[in-house]
Amino acid sequence: MSKSARHWYFNQRPKGDIDDQTLVLREEPVPELKDGEFLVRSVYMSLDATNRVWLSDWDIYMDPVRIGDRMRGFVIGEIVQSRHPDFREGDLAAGLSSWSDYIVDNGTAFQKMPPIPGLKLADAFGILTVAGPTALVGLMDVGQAKAGDTVVVTAAAGAVGMLVGQIAKIHGCRTIGIAGGAEKCGWLKSDLGYDEVVDYKNENVVERLRQLAPDGVDVHFENVGGEVLDAGLTVMKDFGRVVICGLISTYNASGPVPGPYMFRNVIMRRLTIQGFVILDYMERYPELQLKLAGWMQEGRLKYRLHVVDGLENAVGALKLLYSGGNQGKLMVKIGAEPG
Amino acid sequence: MSKSARHWYFNQRPKGDIDDQTLVLREEPVPELKDGEFLVRSVYMSLDATNRVWLSDWDIYMDPVRIGDRMRGFVIGEIVQSRHPDFREGDLAAGLSSWSDYIVDNGTAFQKMPPIPGLKLADAFGILTVAGPTALVGLMDVGQAKAGDTVVVTAAAGAVGMLVGQIAKIHGCRTIGIAGGAEKCGWLKSDLGYDEVVDYKNENVVERLRQLAPDGVDVHFENVGGEVLDAGLTVMKDFGRVVICGLISTYNASGPVPGPYMFRNVIMRRLTIQGFVILDYMERYPELQLKLAGWMQEGRLKYRLHVVDGLENAVGALKLLYSGGNQGKLMVKIGAEPG
Repeated sequence: MSKSARHWYFNQRPKGDIDDQTLVLREEPVPELKDGEFLVRSVYMSLDATNRVWLSDWDIYMDPVRIGDRMRGFVIGEIVQSRHPDFREGDLAAGLSSWSDYIVDNGTAFQKMPPIPGLKLADAFGILTVAGPTALVGLMDVGQAKAGDTVVVTAAAGAVGMLVGQIAKIHGCRTIGIAGGAEKCGWLKSDLGYDEVVDYKNENVVERLRQLAPDGVDVHFENVGGEVLDAGLTVMKDFGRVVICGLISTYNASGPVPGPYMFRNVIMRRLTIQGFVILDYMERYPELQLKLAGWMQEGRLKYRLHVVDGLENAVGALKLLYSGGNQGKLMVKIGAEPG
Repeated sequence: MSKSARHWYFNQRPKGDIDDQTLVLREEPVPELKDGEFLVRSVYMSLDATNRVWLSDWDIYMDPVRIGDRMRGFVIGEIVQSRHPDFREGDLAAGLSSWSDYIVDNGTAFQKMPPIPGLKLADAFGILTVAGPTALVGLMDVGQAKAGDTVVVTAAAGAVGMLVGQIAKIHGCRTIGIAGGAEKCGWLKSDLGYDEVVDYKNENVVERLRQLAPDGVDVHFENVGGEVLDAGLTVMKDFGRVVICGLISTYNASGPVPGPYMFRNVIMRRLTIQGFVILDYMERYPELQLKLAGWMQEGRLKYRLHVVDGLENAVGALKLLYSGGNQGKLMVKIGAEPG
């Protein structure tokens, strides 16, 4: 096999924002497969806010990506060569692997992922791999949302947030989405069914939340941190639940970041603040994906996929997440979908 | 009745620390009792960190004390006159009332509190009114502590903290107390049975906690906030629980106070941070007090009462809480114990 593969490597730890020295693309020959190995041709790769966390020197929730390692990411692809008994040429496989266009694996990183009837590959991968299970577990298990609850979602137009609002509506909640700019806010209300929206770039978030939820908020689903989290903590109902799914506004900080200034409301409103990571729920993926796929097939979950073409454009695409430049679920198309 | 009573009134909202204009003592005639009223002669009054919160302009967990109101506090006293059928002269009564030496009530604020066999009045009042139930509920219900857990307690020599460590030991936990200064730390270890202590005034708290709990901390019981909370969040075990009982270091702030800088560990360690207020557990007081009184009678709960004499010294005493100048449970002796 004389094929070559391109891989993004972690080159230099960023001091703040990811820059051109953070990750570098290198081309390498694909090694000969050994017994038990197979070769994946990557089709789609997921970009997630937590990618930046993996590059930090923090004590994070899993092994970090180390300088000199290939960059880590969720990938779906097609098996194009195999010396593994359970993976055959033409099979689809997905896993937490690397930013690469060809990947050799032995079944450690990749699992077979059969096509889901009625769903396009991009939709199934984009929604069912990370964003959908995260939204569902975060809202219902961590947030304990129930019918009649008022639910606030930050980064409501992001990959997870766009789903949280709809899952909350499916369960009978009232939803308020917080997003930046008229376009995103309009989309949340007209297409995604959010009951109310707050444009944090153009409105006083605390004042608007007080108007929209005069009796307070039961569940706050946080993806951002910083000022919107403070606003959310300010308007919580007594005994409310605050789900910390992401703190994207803090991931590029070059120094210590203060926690929410309204932290005292943990006592004043007797709040429960709970963080979670979807990787802890892997054993529930079949159940979660079945439920999500069902809603998708029934047309009850709407979404935008923001697909950037070409592995070489992955770093530029990733930066969009931290500027809010993405429109829905951000992913990279690395290769053609199987014919 | 020509008797007069002294009352502390909320005179001026403090900008930071409580000062001499915050509360003022006034003498007034005791009004004639109406049908259904009784007169309490105050014996002890509890001073609690949250007293400062009641004087703030924050949206707190109950009605604030308003400027012009009598200062609020837990009081125990003796009924000295009664036109209420259920309260008789000589009865003991306790309640959330005011900083006063004589108090007219109709059974709204005060409840009868019979003497507890084997316990002195000061001990029963000091431990069973606020500090004990707070420690027990916070550790076991909110913190969900279980045998084998490593439990960290801040302000471990304070009214609540001194009890949390012992209740944790009763339930088979390993305990690490954080307190300021060698005297307090020595007392925690030699008298109160804390397994380990950290002197935050003279030691690097994060480093010490890492040494003392290399596998991490299961339950963190927070009374202080600020740097010790940050240290605690830094060394939590995955899925640990952080109980927010008090944030005394922030109550005198004159401006916004940043939340914990290690807030990201809510995600990284998948923590649950939960605040509580003991007033929400009033219906469980009989059960809680029975359990606590039993441990006291058996000599399994040790404590210090820091009793300041004289209602006129209440404000000076209260200030001790915020400087860490108190030694255990702080209370004011307003009048003689019933003979």
